[in-house]
Amino acid sequence: MNYFEIIGFFAAILTTVAFFPQVIKVYKTKETKSISLSMYIVFSIGVLFWLIYGLHLKSLPIVLANAITLISSIYILHMKIKHK
Amino acid sequence: MNYFEIIGFFAAILTTVAFFPQVIKVYKTKETKSISLSMYIVFSIGVLFWLIYGLHLKSLPIVLANAITLISSIYILHMKIKHK
Repeated sequence: MNYFEIIGFFAAILTTVAFFPQVIKVYKTKETKSISLSMYIVFSIGVLFWLIYGLHLKSLPIVLANAITLISSIYILHMKIKHK
Repeated sequence: MNYFEIIGFFAAILTTVAFFPQVIKVYKTKETKSISLSMYIVFSIGVLFWLIYGLHLKSLPIVLANAITLISSIYILHMKIKHK
């Protein structure tokens, strides 16, 4: 793995784990007022498209990162709809 | 452009524009209580890493999508710090 592949690898990890504190915050507080509903609708569809694209490319990092992010995003979306 | 390239193209557009409604919401309301500070710190670093990776690959879609997302993410982070 070269220098730039490591950068790409960390990029995927960081943009995936970034959603965990938001998931935890929403889970703990049930508070979603300042979170944008539109953002999480569009984002979830986009991440689903990345997942399909990754499956086509047979790219494990793209599939794995986007599968995890899709779960985080749909959970935040679910909480936003439930606790308006 | 084949079917799956179009899927990938839409994936990049959707996950980029997804942040626009959050940017607009935060700009209008100055309200950031339920937004996670940690999420936007980690996400901004991750997107910066994607940008560096995209520059290395000379991939215009990766560079463009992540440059725009970095601006959105840093703006939301800035507003979160300013309006706690």
